[in-house]
Amino acid sequence: MAVYTEVSDEELNAFIAQYDVGQLLSYKGIAEGVENSNYLVQTDTAYFILTLYEKRVNPDDLPFFLKLKEHLAGKGLSCPTPVASRDGELLGTLAGRPAALVTFLQGMSVKRPRPEHCEELGKAMAAMHLAGADYELTRKNALDLNGWRPLFEQSQDRCDTVHPGLGAEITAELDYLEKNWPKDLPSGVIHADLFTDNVFFLNDRLSGLIDFYFACNDALAYDIAICLNAWCFEQDLAFNVTKAKAMLKGYTSVRPLTAAEFDALPVLCRGAALRFLLTRLYDWLSVPEGALVTPKDPMEYLKKLRFHQTVDSANAYGLEG
Amino acid sequence: MAVYTEVSDEELNAFIAQYDVGQLLSYKGIAEGVENSNYLVQTDTAYFILTLYEKRVNPDDLPFFLKLKEHLAGKGLSCPTPVASRDGELLGTLAGRPAALVTFLQGMSVKRPRPEHCEELGKAMAAMHLAGADYELTRKNALDLNGWRPLFEQSQDRCDTVHPGLGAEITAELDYLEKNWPKDLPSGVIHADLFTDNVFFLNDRLSGLIDFYFACNDALAYDIAICLNAWCFEQDLAFNVTKAKAMLKGYTSVRPLTAAEFDALPVLCRGAALRFLLTRLYDWLSVPEGALVTPKDPMEYLKKLRFHQTVDSANAYGLEG
Repeated sequence: MAVYTEVSDEELNAFIAQYDVGQLLSYKGIAEGVENSNYLVQTDTAYFILTLYEKRVNPDDLPFFLKLKEHLAGKGLSCPTPVASRDGELLGTLAGRPAALVTFLQGMSVKRPRPEHCEELGKAMAAMHLAGADYELTRKNALDLNGWRPLFEQSQDRCDTVHPGLGAEITAELDYLEKNWPKDLPSGVIHADLFTDNVFFLNDRLSGLIDFYFACNDALAYDIAICLNAWCFEQDLAFNVTKAKAMLKGYTSVRPLTAAEFDALPVLCRGAALRFLLTRLYDWLSVPEGALVTPKDPMEYLKKLRFHQTVDSANAYGLEG
Repeated sequence: MAVYTEVSDEELNAFIAQYDVGQLLSYKGIAEGVENSNYLVQTDTAYFILTLYEKRVNPDDLPFFLKLKEHLAGKGLSCPTPVASRDGELLGTLAGRPAALVTFLQGMSVKRPRPEHCEELGKAMAAMHLAGADYELTRKNALDLNGWRPLFEQSQDRCDTVHPGLGAEITAELDYLEKNWPKDLPSGVIHADLFTDNVFFLNDRLSGLIDFYFACNDALAYDIAICLNAWCFEQDLAFNVTKAKAMLKGYTSVRPLTAAEFDALPVLCRGAALRFLLTRLYDWLSVPEGALVTPKDPMEYLKKLRFHQTVDSANAYGLEG
């Protein structure tokens, strides 16, 4: 949530001149996105978001992300659309970093989604899954089942300082998931990070999806599992089945689930909870003393994981199978 | 350069509803201003800047700042104009903090000002001094001559760790300034922080002044001295007399200097250099280990101070007396 790279007026004017977007009128560094520097740029034709990709993003992945947004927008999905330069390039260079200009999307994320927001999210996620079906590029999910144990090993020594017994609990869950992870589910491009921050609404209607920097190829239903974790628990971490039911109703109204997806949902939800538990645990243990940024509490996802461990069928999520 | 207070969509919608500005369409936290949280807010009528005042700002000072902007804008000066709520209030409350909505100003600061920018700045500063002449509220300059020694005492013990002999050099300068500081110069409302970040341009024409949170009553020529320090040194800290001459030409074309102001300019420049040396020194020594923010180098202002110590008349700044 910071601007890592400062851009001068001279550099930005030269960069903007490569695009057919009019004359630069203002720009502001915005506190959005965890890993990159973002500016809201105003020209005399429109507003844009300018992103400078910082070192945590692999430059080889950038064509996948940018062309995906172009592909999805071309299919009518509301998401930021990359603007091509006069030379037809989606990716340029600014202040020594890869940089891209995308259209500005109106709307705001909701901090406390209601069931109608969850239903809208379900519909948009399913529409994205359908729109991505013929996307030609692929990207492996670096944080899938195969990535979790190596990630855990980087925190294992110290994880019981966060919560007594946490290491054993994670180890048991990894054993379970490695034995029971579903194979051969319908797969395609997933967003993989559809938290409330990344979904915009206007007047309770979904106005767009943003931040595709975790997008990858994986089981489509795993995206649903991430959203059940991110959207359907209350502040006190009670599961709200009304919200889950609304999300699944929205999703299945656009793309019905297969029987295998229905059966897999509880284990996918366990996996999604573990994935965010592990990255938050890593961040929690990696943050320097005295840092300004407070990392997110990993315990939130341990509690969500424990809920999904009690679930024996997708009926618990309000789905009728 | 951060957003300290997060505002939810629900809180912001309720806040915006108190103003006659239309419906909220988007908002982004912006990395602007050192001490407050700022959002760029879009409604269906216009863009605004929303500021939440954090604890380093004294709430008792807020009416001075907000009514000053309203007063200056009313006299035709281009600066952010506070928007009154339907109840006629310039100051509201949001997320438990005092908060104000001001108009959005187009333009960009220039990182490397040229003489024509300096001339524009000089004109706008003089116009601001004239426009502020009948402003009814007053605010003492907390960082004037009387404030410098107490401020220095908080860094004195450790200041030679920054540069050997720095403590003795500052002490000698304080002694000099306390003996030679000019009295009875024309005074009024000054901006007191007109660094390049706080001055916007469009097509090399000045489009507005922002960030009035150091504004106070003091000698008008002290504002000029601050700008000579902030705008007229090159990256290598060589003084650029062409820029100084342009700034003073711009200023005096709108408001001529008195003989006393002309004579006082070198000592005012020494004082302004010391004031920023002292606050930067304090920040440099106060920053916690491992902090994300790098404080600005105090040595820059020691070098500027040493330049002004060699000046024996305002002719050195390109002024003809």
